[in-house]
Amino acid sequence: MTNSEKALQMHEQWNGKIETIAKSHVNSREDLAIAYTPGVAEPCKVIAQDPEAAYKYTIKSNTIAVVSDGSAVLGLGNIGAKAAMPVMEGKAVLFKEFGGVNAVPICLDTQDTEEIIRTVVNIAPAFGGINLEDISAPRCFEIEERLKELLDIPVFHDDQHGTAIVVLAGIINALKVTGKEKENCRVVVNGAGSAGVAITKLLLTYGFPNITMCDINGIIGKDSPNLNWMQKKMVEVTNLENKKGTLADALEGADIFVGVSAPNIVTKDMVTSMNKDAILFAMANPVPEIMPDIAKEAGAKVVGTGRSDFPNQVNNVVAFPGIFKGALEGRATQITEEMKLATANAIAGLVADDELNENNILPEAFDPRVAEVVSKAVKDLI
Amino acid sequence: MTNSEKALQMHEQWNGKIETIAKSHVNSREDLAIAYTPGVAEPCKVIAQDPEAAYKYTIKSNTIAVVSDGSAVLGLGNIGAKAAMPVMEGKAVLFKEFGGVNAVPICLDTQDTEEIIRTVVNIAPAFGGINLEDISAPRCFEIEERLKELLDIPVFHDDQHGTAIVVLAGIINALKVTGKEKENCRVVVNGAGSAGVAITKLLLTYGFPNITMCDINGIIGKDSPNLNWMQKKMVEVTNLENKKGTLADALEGADIFVGVSAPNIVTKDMVTSMNKDAILFAMANPVPEIMPDIAKEAGAKVVGTGRSDFPNQVNNVVAFPGIFKGALEGRATQITEEMKLATANAIAGLVADDELNENNILPEAFDPRVAEVVSKAVKDLI
Repeated sequence: MTNSEKALQMHEQWNGKIETIAKSHVNSREDLAIAYTPGVAEPCKVIAQDPEAAYKYTIKSNTIAVVSDGSAVLGLGNIGAKAAMPVMEGKAVLFKEFGGVNAVPICLDTQDTEEIIRTVVNIAPAFGGINLEDISAPRCFEIEERLKELLDIPVFHDDQHGTAIVVLAGIINALKVTGKEKENCRVVVNGAGSAGVAITKLLLTYGFPNITMCDINGIIGKDSPNLNWMQKKMVEVTNLENKKGTLADALEGADIFVGVSAPNIVTKDMVTSMNKDAILFAMANPVPEIMPDIAKEAGAKVVGTGRSDFPNQVNNVVAFPGIFKGALEGRATQITEEMKLATANAIAGLVADDELNENNILPEAFDPRVAEVVSKAVKDLI
Repeated sequence: MTNSEKALQMHEQWNGKIETIAKSHVNSREDLAIAYTPGVAEPCKVIAQDPEAAYKYTIKSNTIAVVSDGSAVLGLGNIGAKAAMPVMEGKAVLFKEFGGVNAVPICLDTQDTEEIIRTVVNIAPAFGGINLEDISAPRCFEIEERLKELLDIPVFHDDQHGTAIVVLAGIINALKVTGKEKENCRVVVNGAGSAGVAITKLLLTYGFPNITMCDINGIIGKDSPNLNWMQKKMVEVTNLENKKGTLADALEGADIFVGVSAPNIVTKDMVTSMNKDAILFAMANPVPEIMPDIAKEAGAKVVGTGRSDFPNQVNNVVAFPGIFKGALEGRATQITEEMKLATANAIAGLVADDELNENNILPEAFDPRVAEVVSKAVKDLI
């Protein structure tokens, strides 16, 4: 049986990858009178007087919604709400298994920005946080920004920030391995969707002064046609020399390549044209922008991918469960830029100096320390 | 410690009465590759081609949303979304404990009819059914009717129909105990909100020809002022003699009283004025319209209340878990009038002839046969 067949068979057997279970079992009339009427009126009355008490008496303290409109699911594209459910359920599983966070998958029967925003605001009272997932760019940027303004609970688009945090963690350690300094690095980010934009923003915040973004048409600059509003904002802070040309032109003399784009679009020659000890994160999935062995042959020092069968897997699961665990435990109202930087540093710090090498720059997804360390990094900043 | 204090303490200890747990545990890279990427893409692709496959591969097959706007919670009134959460979580507990149905509490930060409808439609793809709860009348009628038109999954307002079904079940058995026949009974329903309207409708459907509704101003008729649109519909099919007067006037010569109204508003004299072997369902909570012992002294034969410390408790928990269990297992698209009647008959049928008497007309909430029998009654009609 192939893995695909096995996945289908197991999904049928699970018939839903999560379930809701009662913490308050009801085996007698007395149980019923405490967990339901008339006893349940007591916490209701307290919360009616003091809405903050919802954190004391309800699932709001430890439950988030995983919200998608199914518009940009994995590499499958716009497959809609129902077809997105297995992914959102999977995400809910990972939140619980890795971070102890209860998560409810909510897939929306609308792809209209205003409808999505209103719907999430309307369902927010039950939840302690909102994880946005697989919403296409540039709508995802507006939806997240507006929801952050409208809600008093953390809103986090994992495709953007989870990816950005883990890439930054990997780069922090890759700099140590190569001896490069961020101030002197030239960075090229290929892909200007949700992940590419968020990675670029976080690397700028971290202190990389020189970043160039590319998309399918090559280098993005002030004169590029057809940029969306977010990409227009990005060209104000990237490609400050206003270079033009192809991805190959961008990579000449670059130190770091971050790809969230398409398979096999980086050639051996492009890697050779980069600076010595180049760092590549080739995260197109399942086939990366360049295969690690080819990049290494061409002179790259550190290569990460999205795959578990190569060294240095960039896997969001080291970030999002711990981030929401910390945010809920500390009752954060937002996931701030400082928290993202602290989280990246915390993840990078899990690889001890004597274990750090070009094939080991990131902790394992199953490293049991990860969620603890990440959640602490978040909580320390609340 | 009082029960109220204990309820508060337990709610703090639970800190949320439900949790989400993973059915697909993730302990290895292989687990991750099956439950999440890349394996998860397989069920996504199948559902994208055939949306019905969502029932095969996702929680849609066995999960409902318990939706409230917090506008009419227990006897507490309009306490809002956050304060309604303990009740909705309690309901979710009962769905799982009694019916094996996964349920997610969703409390809405809006009380606007159109917003509620849009929000529920938008979140529907993840769910196999919608249980509406504690939404004030008359908005609850429009919200339910519109959602039934818009959605292809069952929508059920339990405050209306759950109550109506259990009242009808009790009345079916009370008729047997008293030897009365529905065709000759005069029925008075006091309270013209969600429950009163739904009870009246279901009793009409069952075949009671003569029903009079009352509210705080007395008998409701064609000339009553300030009726809402639903009450205006109801006076076309009730009080066909167009009687006027007080509740006391209505009860003269009546056979059955159903109260979903206020404490202590039925006097001993009113019961005395009813026909011989009167049947009373006095369901105001926690203090009924008349205490059972007083009603009995005045000549009533069968008295039911909402309380567990008197005989004949009318408790929705014998209905809603089994109804959704059956609807989900049979993949019903609606809960029909026929299903409501069949459910009431099934509940009534659980009291064997040799156990049936004026103090035993309804099965116990904890009778393990209830959910099975109710779900079968629903499934047999799909």
